[in-house]
This record gives sequence, C-alpha cells and structure tokens, in this order.
Amino acid sequence: MYSLTVCDHIMIAHSFSGAEFGPAQRLHGATFVVEAEFRAPKLDHLNLLIDIGLARDELRRILAAVDYRNLDEVPAFVGQNTTTEFMAHHIHAQLAAACRAGVLGEGGRAVTVIKVLLRESPLAWAAFEGDIG
Amino acid sequence: MYSLTVCDHIMIAHSFSGAEFGPAQRLHGATFVVEAEFRAPKLDHLNLLIDIGLARDELRRILAAVDYRNLDEVPAFVGQNTTTEFMAHHIHAQLAAACRAGVLGEGGRAVTVIKVLLRESPLAWAAFEGDIG
Amino acid sequence: MYSLTVCDHIMIAHSFSGAEFGPAQRLHGATFVVEAEFRAPKLDHLNLLIDIGLARDELRRILAAVDYRNLDEVPAFVGQNTTTEFMAHHIHAQLAAACRAGVLGEGGRAVTVIKVLLRESPLAWAAFEGDIG
Amino acid sequence: MYSLTVCDHIMIAHSFSGAEFGPAQRLHGATFVVEAEFRAPKLDHLNLLIDIGLARDELRRILAAVDYRNLDEVPAFVGQNTTTEFMAHHIHAQLAAACRAGVLGEGGRAVTVIKVLLRESPLAWAAFEGDIG
Amino acid sequence: MYSLTVCDHIMIAHSFSGAEFGPAQRLHGATFVVEAEFRAPKLDHLNLLIDIGLARDELRRILAAVDYRNLDEVPAFVGQNTTTEFMAHHIHAQLAAACRAGVLGEGGRAVTVIKVLLRESPLAWAAFEGDIG
Amino acid sequence: MYSLTVCDHIMIAHSFSGAEFGPAQRLHGATFVVEAEFRAPKLDHLNLLIDIGLARDELRRILAAVDYRNLDEVPAFVGQNTTTEFMAHHIHAQLAAACRAGVLGEGGRAVTVIKVLLRESPLAWAAFEGDIG
Repeated sequence: MYSLTVCDHIMIAHSFSGAEFGPAQRLHGATFVVEAEFRAPKLDHLNLLIDIGLARDELRRILAAVDYRNLDEVPAFVGQNTTTEFMAHHIHAQLAAACRAGVLGEGGRAVTVIKVLLRESPLAWAAFEGDIG
Repeated sequence: MYSLTVCDHIMIAHSFSGAEFGPAQRLHGATFVVEAEFRAPKLDHLNLLIDIGLARDELRRILAAVDYRNLDEVPAFVGQNTTTEFMAHHIHAQLAAACRAGVLGEGGRAVTVIKVLLRESPLAWAAFEGDIG
Repeated sequence: MYSLTVCDHIMIAHSFSGAEFGPAQRLHGATFVVEAEFRAPKLDHLNLLIDIGLARDELRRILAAVDYRNLDEVPAFVGQNTTTEFMAHHIHAQLAAACRAGVLGEGGRAVTVIKVLLRESPLAWAAFEGDIG
Repeated sequence: MYSLTVCDHIMIAHSFSGAEFGPAQRLHGATFVVEAEFRAPKLDHLNLLIDIGLARDELRRILAAVDYRNLDEVPAFVGQNTTTEFMAHHIHAQLAAACRAGVLGEGGRAVTVIKVLLRESPLAWAAFEGDIG
Repeated sequence: MYSLTVCDHIMIAHSFSGAEFGPAQRLHGATFVVEAEFRAPKLDHLNLLIDIGLARDELRRILAAVDYRNLDEVPAFVGQNTTTEFMAHHIHAQLAAACRAGVLGEGGRAVTVIKVLLRESPLAWAAFEGDIG
Repeated sequence: MYSLTVCDHIMIAHSFSGAEFGPAQRLHGATFVVEAEFRAPKLDHLNLLIDIGLARDELRRILAAVDYRNLDEVPAFVGQNTTTEFMAHHIHAQLAAACRAGVLGEGGRAVTVIKVLLRESPLAWAAFEGDIG
C-alpha cells in the first residue's frame, strides 16, 4: 500500500462543554498542525499516488473555512465540542468527499483510505482514519 | 477509527546480555520518549475518545516505576534484556490493564487497540501494537 | 557562556487590532510552545546552571496565569495586541523578576541573560532576549 | 505486533516528466529522510526484533547506490519518474529481499511487514508498506 | 532584543568542485529548509516586529528564483560552490536589501540583524548572521 | 558571521550527588543529542566554513570515548556531576583543542567560536558556547 501525506496548519479558538474538560471549558485556542494522508494500492502512469498540488490546494480550501476563527461560532459545529478527534473526523469527511467528486483528479478517485492527524501540542495529537469509497 | 496519543519520557540506565549487542553490553542509558496511542471506533457524547487528563496521569504513574532507574535492578525485569521493543510491550500491557480496569473511565473501556512507541534516539525507535479486550 | 533551556506550552485565544493583521483580527487561537533559556558564565559546585525543577515549576506558574484563556480578557493585556513577540517579552519579564527575587535559588541569581522563544506554528516563531540584573 | 524503525537520509537530484509536475519538471533535488520500519509478531530470545546494527548497515548499503546521485542517470530508473512514493517502493523491495536472503539474520527472516517512509520536506512525505514473505 | 522567524523550503540540484567534497562532487540535490530570523530592539505600535505576511512573501519571492532548479546553471552562481553556508549568505543579502528598500514596511527598516539558517538534513545545517543597515 | 552545525548522539548512564537532584541521584541514563556549531567570519576558497566530513569524524571520535558508558566510572569525570551543561563544556573543550591542533584542517583553524548543545529530552537542553583561539 502506498501513502502520500501533505501538511498544513490552522489557528483556532474554541471552548468545551462538560466538567471533564476542566480549564479547557474556558475560551482558549490551539494551533492544529494537520497531516492528511492518502492511501492507494497503486501509482498512476507518472508514478504518482495523487497530484500533490491538488491535494495541498484542497486541504487549504477545507481548512480556510475554519482557520483564524472561533469554532464556537461556526454554524456547522453548533452543539458540538470541537475536540481534536472531532476536527480530524470533520476534515476527513471533506477530503473523502473531494476524492469521490474527482476534485483530486484520477489519483484521488483511486484513494481507498484517508487518515487525518491533528497535532495540538508537542505532547498530544489525535486522528481519524477510514475507508472512503 | 479514531486515535488519541499522549507523550511523556523517561531517563533510564540498563545493560544488555548477548554478544550481538556489542558496546551496548556495557551499562549505558537512554532517554525514551514514549508515545501512547489509544484507538476506538467512536467518540463519547462529549466528542472525546478518552479523558486526556486521565490518560496522561496513568501513563506517568506507569512510567514513574521505571523513570530515573537502572532497569537491570528492577525486579520485574530480572533475566530480561530491556530493549526498546520489550519496554514498549511492557508499557502496553500496563496501559491495556488500566483500560480494562476502568482507570481511564468509560472512554478507556471502549478502547480496542493500543500502540506504544518509544523513541530512543532521532535515528531509532520501536513499538508494540495490539488489541486489548 | 553556559545555557539551560526548559520547555512548556500554553493554548490561548486572542484577537488583534489593526488592518495589518488581516484574518487574525478575528478571534482565533494558538498553541505557543515556550522555550525559556537561562544563561550564566559559570556553574555552581554541583555543576548546575540552575535547578531545573525550580525552573520548570516557575515557568509553569507564570504560564498558568494565561493558559487556557482568552488573552483579550486578561486585565494585564488590556489595549495590547498579544502578538507572539509581545508574549515572549511578557514571560521574559516575569522570569527575570523570579531570578532576581531568588525564586530560582542561587543559580537563578547568577543568571545574566534570559531568552524566551515562543513557537506559534511549525513555520513561525518569535523571541525576546535580554540581560537581567 | 512489534516494530523497529531505523533512519538514514540521501541527497539526490532528479527531474520529472509530465506537465502535472509543473516546475518539478526541471532538474532539481531533494534530501530524502528515510525511515525503514520492520514488523514482526514476536521478539527473539534476546528480546530483539532484529539486529539494529545489521538493519542500519543494510539500509546504508541500499541507499549508497543512489546517494549523492542524479537519479535520471541511474540505469535502474530509466523511463521512470523517481517520485517519493516510487523511491519508497524501490527501497522496500530491496529491504524485503535482504530479509528473505538472511542478510538481516534470523530476526530478518521473521519480519512479516516492512514500511519505508521518505520525508521530502517538512510538509510532504510518502511511504510504501507491504507484506514480505 | 526581539526576533521573529519565518520558514520556507526549496528543493535544488547542484554539484561541487574540489576533491574535498568527495561524492558530493557528483550532481546531487537537497531540500533546504530555510529559517529567516529578523531582529530589532523594539516593536511597533501594534506590537509587531515586522509584518509576518510581508516577510513570508518576500522570502518566497527570493527563494522562487532558485527553487526547483539546478544551481550549477543559475547565472548568479557561476564559478561558485553553492554550499549551504554560501546559500545562507546569498539569501541574507537579499533579505537585507529588501529591509533597507522598505519592501518589509517600517518594521523592516527597523531590523538591525538578520540570520538565515538552512537545514540540509536532520544532521547538518549552516547559517549566516549579520548586521544590516 | 557564518556557522555550520553537525549532529550526533550518545547513550550514557550516570548518577548525581546532591539532594537537589531528587530522583536523579539514582543511577539512570540519557540519550544526549549533540549539536556542535562552528562559527567563523569567512568561508574558504571552496565556500566551506569547515570540512563537514572532518567535523563529523572528530565529533564521533570525541563522543566514542563516552558513548555506551556509565559516566560515573569514566576516570576523567571522577568527583564531577556529569550534568548536561557540564558535558556540553567537556565536548566544547575537546572540539576547541581539535580546531587549534589542525585536526579540522585550515577551516578549523579559522573557527573563532564553538557552541555545543546537548538535548537530554524534548523538554530540556543545555549548551556551552565560547571563543576558541
């Protein structure tokens, strides 16, 4: 199995609901370093898994909708705790849709698995990995 | 599949038995950077895989038993080469027991796989990954 | 010249005033990885520049006042843009005061220079470095 | 499942054929940081997955054939775009052959999966992972 | 003294003249991770050392002239070994000129020192640091 | 001012004397990642600060004397706490002597400052920097 990963990052504010979160119930923020990994069983005739330029542009387009924002005020996240694991799933869903829609070219249509990993600090990160198809 | 990873580190001394180890047969040491990854198929009602505070505390509790020690003198390791891969398995077993025992809360009971990775230098690391349950 | 550096991190929200900031005028956030470097021309009789435990505890105490907070609402920062470079200076001033007050022991009194560096993303960081004394 | 990873790096020149590559059609180069991960279900009597010295030496021997070279002129790659994902597969095939041939000792014969990951920049990397056997 | 650092990277090919270079006399390449550090004694009224967007754009503009190229064929480098330390100086000179010319705004005119650091591998890097003005 | 840095690492055991060290009074160990930085005001006719191969070999030779050892038993360190800052000074002294003795070639004789930095964990490091000559 081949994989290709591209990186970007966002800087967001948010707060959490639930006593379990302790001080993170307060409005605070995070730099999320985002690693988007695309997997496919074979390469195309150019020896590419996916066009890396298309992948970077699509990841940036998806992230731009939340970058430099207070996630508590983003309509799509109303009533949700925007934890690192939740945000990984959110980005995964959008990258999967982009692959299926052909936004990432023929290479994107051949992708079978995507993993999205978000680093919130040097000591903690979360990910969502799943088949697309 | 979701995953959440927390990090910590220990500073230990040890020696190895077996000519294959060359100079590492001498008493030496290592900083092991420990990455403990918990995987589960879904999040709880707060959008958490596991309570990150509980995970960090339990990892620290497990590591404290070996941190700043000569592993050659730790009773649990008598007759064992405490290689990086062996220590990854040792920590995995204890984190798995903690999940099953409920020490990591309901989130911990829902964990299906744990991976423990130990970085011994910028150029080498080892891991143990296995189902728990 | 000797130096010793300890690290920690904070997760904060804030917004900036001034058209130059573009989208960063909106409420957003950051993980700041904080590196506090202490310099002194010599070591003590134990071969220590400074007690690393005291240094970590004092850095954590200083950071706790802003960690998991919206800096726009912290009284000390009213009317200020809490840029990365500004926050580096803020932490520097407090560490310098701690050294002078003896909170970091005799080693801390011998420190002549402190540098505080804050990483806001993998692609950008800022620092303040200055004599104390 | 246990895993052990060793790292090395190469500095190569190459060019790509295909309009999709944009400016990368020109002769350019890369530092590839190479991470070779070996997986096996159990450790040997010394608690080793594989002899790390043998693994490093064999990885270096394989990489030496392409290090400090223009890949466009390496006979084995004629007519191929030496993309990061292609090179990961190339190195994987050679490490797999080494394991099967016993070059990595009994530990190497017990390896069931190898993953080779090449980092081309802080923002992009590719890998090939596959069973050997 | 304050400092602000922004990062980017280039992927280049080149060869070196001189027996001292050993295998690096052959055409090969490198990913250079470029860290451009700007220093100034004070911040502006917005608490900025320099406009980070302008700094990133200017660094990218300077790097674009050599990115994805064979440095042996760049007219500006004829007869020069484009070592890591040489390239650090080259980029430094251009950033210094940009600051003096006002391309980086008033903040750029207040910069007193620039340091440019190029990482060629995880195990080696070089820099040039100098006053501008 | 130009600088060139090369890296290596050692894995050592040691213990500390003095109640200030707490649990580090016990025999434990560390992986020290060693960064040796050489500074000089100009490059040679090949555009090199120093022959990087000579620098790496000399650093390895110096480190080999302490690598995979219990520093408590190294005669040169009797009665000394081998703290990270102390070890940085120790390696600095030997690299300085090598430069002065011509072991690092003409480039080494032109070096005016050396900085040796040792990372003991992701959260702590120490250095010694000084003029040589």
